[in-house]
Amino acid sequence: MLDIFDRIKQNPGPLGQFADYGEGYFIFPRLEGPIGPRMQFQGREVIFWSANDYLGMCNHPEVLEADAKAAAEFGMFYPMGARAMSGETQQHLQLERELADFVQKESAYLLNFGYQGMVSTIDALVGRNDVIVYDVDSHACIVDGVRLHSGKRFTYRHNDIASLEKNLERATKVAEETGGGILVITEGVFGMRGQQGKLKEICELKSKYKFRLLVDDAHGFGTLGKTGAGAGEEQGCQDQIDVYFSTFAKSMAGFGAFIAGDKEIIRYLKFNLRSQIFAKSLTMPMVIGGLKRLELLRTRPEIKAKLWENTNKLQNGLKERGFNIGDTNTCVTPVMMQGTPVEATLLVKDLRENYGIFTSVVVYPVIPKGMILLRLIPTASHTDSEINETLAAFEAIHDKLVGGYYKDQEQKLLAEQGLSFKEI
Amino acid sequence: MLDIFDRIKQNPGPLGQFADYGEGYFIFPRLEGPIGPRMQFQGREVIFWSANDYLGMCNHPEVLEADAKAAAEFGMFYPMGARAMSGETQQHLQLERELADFVQKESAYLLNFGYQGMVSTIDALVGRNDVIVYDVDSHACIVDGVRLHSGKRFTYRHNDIASLEKNLERATKVAEETGGGILVITEGVFGMRGQQGKLKEICELKSKYKFRLLVDDAHGFGTLGKTGAGAGEEQGCQDQIDVYFSTFAKSMAGFGAFIAGDKEIIRYLKFNLRSQIFAKSLTMPMVIGGLKRLELLRTRPEIKAKLWENTNKLQNGLKERGFNIGDTNTCVTPVMMQGTPVEATLLVKDLRENYGIFTSVVVYPVIPKGMILLRLIPTASHTDSEINETLAAFEAIHDKLVGGYYKDQEQKLLAEQGLSFKEI
Repeated sequence: MLDIFDRIKQNPGPLGQFADYGEGYFIFPRLEGPIGPRMQFQGREVIFWSANDYLGMCNHPEVLEADAKAAAEFGMFYPMGARAMSGETQQHLQLERELADFVQKESAYLLNFGYQGMVSTIDALVGRNDVIVYDVDSHACIVDGVRLHSGKRFTYRHNDIASLEKNLERATKVAEETGGGILVITEGVFGMRGQQGKLKEICELKSKYKFRLLVDDAHGFGTLGKTGAGAGEEQGCQDQIDVYFSTFAKSMAGFGAFIAGDKEIIRYLKFNLRSQIFAKSLTMPMVIGGLKRLELLRTRPEIKAKLWENTNKLQNGLKERGFNIGDTNTCVTPVMMQGTPVEATLLVKDLRENYGIFTSVVVYPVIPKGMILLRLIPTASHTDSEINETLAAFEAIHDKLVGGYYKDQEQKLLAEQGLSFKEI
Repeated sequence: MLDIFDRIKQNPGPLGQFADYGEGYFIFPRLEGPIGPRMQFQGREVIFWSANDYLGMCNHPEVLEADAKAAAEFGMFYPMGARAMSGETQQHLQLERELADFVQKESAYLLNFGYQGMVSTIDALVGRNDVIVYDVDSHACIVDGVRLHSGKRFTYRHNDIASLEKNLERATKVAEETGGGILVITEGVFGMRGQQGKLKEICELKSKYKFRLLVDDAHGFGTLGKTGAGAGEEQGCQDQIDVYFSTFAKSMAGFGAFIAGDKEIIRYLKFNLRSQIFAKSLTMPMVIGGLKRLELLRTRPEIKAKLWENTNKLQNGLKERGFNIGDTNTCVTPVMMQGTPVEATLLVKDLRENYGIFTSVVVYPVIPKGMILLRLIPTASHTDSEINETLAAFEAIHDKLVGGYYKDQEQKLLAEQGLSFKEI
């Protein structure tokens, strides 16, 4: 046997191996100054493309005022404990009613945090005889929820309906044996590369297979659909989503989350979500602030229109310049290039320090090996000049990448500093 | 096979079966008005014993001011994304340093929420060859973390060192076969009945068995130990706790949590906690508000002294009146009586409506069947008159319970309304 700490010291994990080189810069970077499309990074101003704040609500004066007023009245602790014990208020119930209306469902329930909310939703929906079928690219919170399942689970290839169907057939066979049911889980928008989940096609399979559908619409809520109700509305199948989930950490510029669906099912979940029954209710300032955010979502369609105007300018500009932005059909804007992890870091550093552009760089294990993925999240707050500066900068660094500039730097750096990276 | 929603509609779950009778009153009650030892419930003032706000910080003017000021400056969204992506700030790092100092550890890391933070901490510490040994009464977040473990796990009888030792022997045999290690998990304070985990005795077993110790000190942090560093300090073995965990949802009157331990281990966890790598950073107002709360913890020992003065008055008063408060050796004050679930609800209703006392009533599945557990959490803010009123009320309702008053009511109620409860 061993000491688990000895193992930890020997193997820092997939991200941890870069800690000494990248911490505080490539991973755990520290942005400073007021939140918005321009922030401070390492002492210089950068155009910031990683806020997830699609509608620019994070610094909307009405939102800030609502947050501040609620915090002054209630502090950060109210309401005291778990929803079931002492954490329910009229405001929680009101926000739930308004969210349900907004996403066109009978009922909604607030979650104190999205990640554990999703984990417990999956956990509460299935029993050991049930079968889960889920998209292989699902977010970590879905994966962890599925990991709690003691019965069978199958993944299907990312957004691949033929593969889903094949796995639904397998799942049906299992469920017929066990007497259980089937839960399909996917996302409204895949946050890394911006494809919408093929919800419409998945829902059409309901005529052929018996299953219930749980959708994580973190990036779709507020950005997609005529009213902003998300990917289901966009695709015309919102009523076929059995349990709709969204975080508040994107368009709602906050934290926490909610689920929505038929009244009876949401009520069941309210009484059976372990992370909600046994942990603190969503804090009041986020509930009151959430009511304000939702009011803006409902009453200011010009904000979403501006988001899409900016998204189109950015994505068209990138495409016109020959960039591979994959098959995004949402605001999420991935720019994919080929290169080593070291090239990726050199390119990102160049982009930040010499061009003043801050994007997230996504690394393995979130995306496959050998790919450089820079992800831009346009918001309604970005200006034309910020978009144009960014496009010019991307053109410049791409020329350098293709011309071998970062490859040369990589070899120089590795030789000079004796640095080495494990193959990942 | 079946439709999972059909099953849900047929079986509302252990708590859900009481929903029609109890929702909004016994479960999901709505407290109103400013937070504190007296709140509004169903239109009348009640003395409130369920806040978990041991040090009365929730409405401390300096805390409210810090929360409000931070919310006005930063809103509820800052810092934007996950810690690793765009969610790290100097203030997060500062609070981590101060928390580490406070609990006498090298290093600390903030968690965006306690429940999922604990789940991921367990998940990151163990691999499939490792063995987990944990107290059978551990909090749901520990249970869910253990559920993610793909290797062996053993429970030991609650706070029973002989049982722990027996299970350490079994775990050692398994670990010797697999080449893995052993993680022991317990709590500093068991929140339902108030016993401290026997940390000192557990740590002494380290001379005999090779294991690492993870402690959830949610109710100990701020209330136990000379400086408030928790159950480990109280028992003189803080240095033997390998990973120390506490929520901010009790003494810190907030939400979120932290882990603390050796620098190398905490850094590993920073890079490997899935719920932190893949979800939003703790919101800034809670970080800045957390710095203020921790300052008060450090600099105002009179607050903790007042908490204990109140705790002793309450617990001694209950004991003098012949109540069974179990073997609590912390501020958590359980009052245990025997009765049916219906008697429990009638008693609690009487207590709330006719005596103006609001306590949580804990029901199965949190505690065993047949027991009525009223849990009181004294705080530094409660006054002598609130304590005395409560003691008098408990005396009165206890006399009624023993005299069969609630039993008579139960029979009347069941007969009149045709209500029935499944045996639970």
